[in-house]
Amino acid sequence: MKEIVIGFLGCGNVGGGVWNLLEGFASEIAHRDQLKIRVKKVLVRNVNKARTCAVPQELLTSNPAEVLEDPEISLVAEFMGGEQPATDYMLRALESGKTVVTANKVAVALNWHRLQAAAQQHNAGLYYEASVCGAIPIISTLMTPLQSNRITKLMGIINGTTNYILSRMYENGEDYADVLSDAQKLGLAEPDPASDVEGMDAAYKLSIMASLAFHARVHYDKVYREGITRITAMDITCGKEMGYVLKLLAIAKREGNVIETRVHPTFLKADHPLAQVNGSFNAVYLHGHACKEMMLQGRGAGDIPTASAVVGDILHAAMSDVHVHPTFENRATPDPLMVFTDDWQSRYFIRLSAKDAPGVLASVAGSFARENVSIATMMQKGSVEQGRVPLIFITHGASEKAMQAALKHLDPEVARIESMIRVED
Amino acid sequence: MKEIVIGFLGCGNVGGGVWNLLEGFASEIAHRDQLKIRVKKVLVRNVNKARTCAVPQELLTSNPAEVLEDPEISLVAEFMGGEQPATDYMLRALESGKTVVTANKVAVALNWHRLQAAAQQHNAGLYYEASVCGAIPIISTLMTPLQSNRITKLMGIINGTTNYILSRMYENGEDYADVLSDAQKLGLAEPDPASDVEGMDAAYKLSIMASLAFHARVHYDKVYREGITRITAMDITCGKEMGYVLKLLAIAKREGNVIETRVHPTFLKADHPLAQVNGSFNAVYLHGHACKEMMLQGRGAGDIPTASAVVGDILHAAMSDVHVHPTFENRATPDPLMVFTDDWQSRYFIRLSAKDAPGVLASVAGSFARENVSIATMMQKGSVEQGRVPLIFITHGASEKAMQAALKHLDPEVARIESMIRVED
Repeated sequence: MKEIVIGFLGCGNVGGGVWNLLEGFASEIAHRDQLKIRVKKVLVRNVNKARTCAVPQELLTSNPAEVLEDPEISLVAEFMGGEQPATDYMLRALESGKTVVTANKVAVALNWHRLQAAAQQHNAGLYYEASVCGAIPIISTLMTPLQSNRITKLMGIINGTTNYILSRMYENGEDYADVLSDAQKLGLAEPDPASDVEGMDAAYKLSIMASLAFHARVHYDKVYREGITRITAMDITCGKEMGYVLKLLAIAKREGNVIETRVHPTFLKADHPLAQVNGSFNAVYLHGHACKEMMLQGRGAGDIPTASAVVGDILHAAMSDVHVHPTFENRATPDPLMVFTDDWQSRYFIRLSAKDAPGVLASVAGSFARENVSIATMMQKGSVEQGRVPLIFITHGASEKAMQAALKHLDPEVARIESMIRVED
Repeated sequence: MKEIVIGFLGCGNVGGGVWNLLEGFASEIAHRDQLKIRVKKVLVRNVNKARTCAVPQELLTSNPAEVLEDPEISLVAEFMGGEQPATDYMLRALESGKTVVTANKVAVALNWHRLQAAAQQHNAGLYYEASVCGAIPIISTLMTPLQSNRITKLMGIINGTTNYILSRMYENGEDYADVLSDAQKLGLAEPDPASDVEGMDAAYKLSIMASLAFHARVHYDKVYREGITRITAMDITCGKEMGYVLKLLAIAKREGNVIETRVHPTFLKADHPLAQVNGSFNAVYLHGHACKEMMLQGRGAGDIPTASAVVGDILHAAMSDVHVHPTFENRATPDPLMVFTDDWQSRYFIRLSAKDAPGVLASVAGSFARENVSIATMMQKGSVEQGRVPLIFITHGASEKAMQAALKHLDPEVARIESMIRVED
């Protein structure tokens, strides 16, 4: 029977999940695949802390060298999170020919070129299915079956916390702050929720997926990012009345060599496949020139679903004599063959607080028309209060810059901008 | 630059799609992967027939040996469909060390053990992503990332023709025969629709998926099968009123070593992820002990989506120095470690034509109770006609055999069985 000896870097939520999954499944794997998986060392910050898994005390160490420099360990599984020291530890492992399996989106998104170069140079494997969307097999799907496709569009609900918040706001008309505080109590949002609600978490994941989809490194800092913190119950209610559902979408599109990547609140028609993905579920919808529309959905977070991806990678690595690497040049600097644009095409949901006076609608429409932004739908919402009335517009397709310019023409005295939310098909 | 020389077996709808996809994408693949794909010979029945693709006349041959015995051809792509002669040709290819990529669900479902044995014996690859659900990457997902899972349940809408028919019946209350004839005119159903509407197509695909999911060969003849030909507009309308959508589902479940596999019309709650998959879309929903719920949806048929899977397999094969084979013993006879049951648990939708007289409901309820089938919902639909009235029951979970026995107790004079449709969660 083949044996693979593993070292863990980190043993928190995900590492504990991997330990527990292996513990309950290792004998089935041994029987099925004739493969013994042995965890030899587990790096932790504090060897005396209570753990969510029953890892024997003698396996724990706070000295990284005990994992990274043990020649018997051929695979290092990294669950520390964060850019450093995880990146340096993974580089050290790869440089000594150890294969790395990681759940770390930040380290992969920021230092992919270094990790991949080290893996290739030392004939080691680098596996990161768990770094994006937990159990959803989006990395393996992009890396293998979809190599036959020119992928033109990828849109994902790839952050469970924000999807839970927006789903509840949609269902119950609740306010952002109330739902967030509830989600924090339920353990569905972090005490410091910024990485989720400001879209950083989604932007890291999008950077990885877009790179694989477009065969060109899409850096994290090329992802436009806008969170959900300014979304109001009013926006969601108005959208709902007009047949739209609000999601924090990660969007990547490619046309020729022009790439756009962005994370922002987005209205989708209620019958869009992504609009049905609620609560803490994740989903990635994409379009390729051959596969056409495709969507993968499932559990994008949680210790055991993430462990599902980690252990899938461990088994894949253990069964592979040759490791596969992405087929694009994974550069430290943006790919010179690609043009990254922030002037994408979209439709727009605009909510204004308008003066209740003759000529206001004409004035708004005129501002839009000056920039060639054409209005598809207009709705007056509610009644006049203090001489002002809410007006909602949904535009036809327009360029981002044109829309921004059109909004600048508005006189706040006449029509104050309350919200500008993008609308996708 | 690496070159792979390919022979086609067949050049109909799928083969033409693969030719067209390669023609439009080969230069991108060459640039991206440093891989030249050359199609050297194309086996067809009639070299003079008009084709949907621009394959040069000099590549066509009606002699299989020109593909199977050409030592330069290292990969054979099979699109003939049907068990024979496709199986024999694939075996001949594998036996001379050629890798086989196939879109042929019938040949794989029926002769998988022979094909796989030949592939392993001769160090050749056997790839069949395109044999199940077109572009949806279910085979690669089961074979790689989900190896970390004990899959307990898999349910799929894996036949586009029947999903199109049932979706239209649901939307418009149309009758089966009318929609079928329309679908035939639109090219969405075959002139002889039996393989689709009687569930054979879905059963072949389920046999392949269930084998990979459960790591045990599940033979086609172990799949219980019931088509949609007896479904009426009345059934669908009643279900719709009670909050259910009707789908032709392929279902595979495993508990311990007990396996059930079945294809039949099935009611799903309208908010089930599969209930939203309409028209000619396909989807596979599954549950694993680590990944939890997951669903893959997309284009399950059509020349180009199927070609997406074929070319994905060609690229995978071309890039692999070692080919991967499933980790279960792929037997000619059913796996002796597994028990295949036809006495599954389900809920049931029962439509009766009942005599409009006192005591009828008590009599029906009594028949059910005798077999421990408990009623969850009852609805009387419409008014009395010719002394009879339609009664609809939905039961709680019961065994199939108990339900069948309970229905046998009914006196057709009192309560005639119009429909018995299974309900899944």
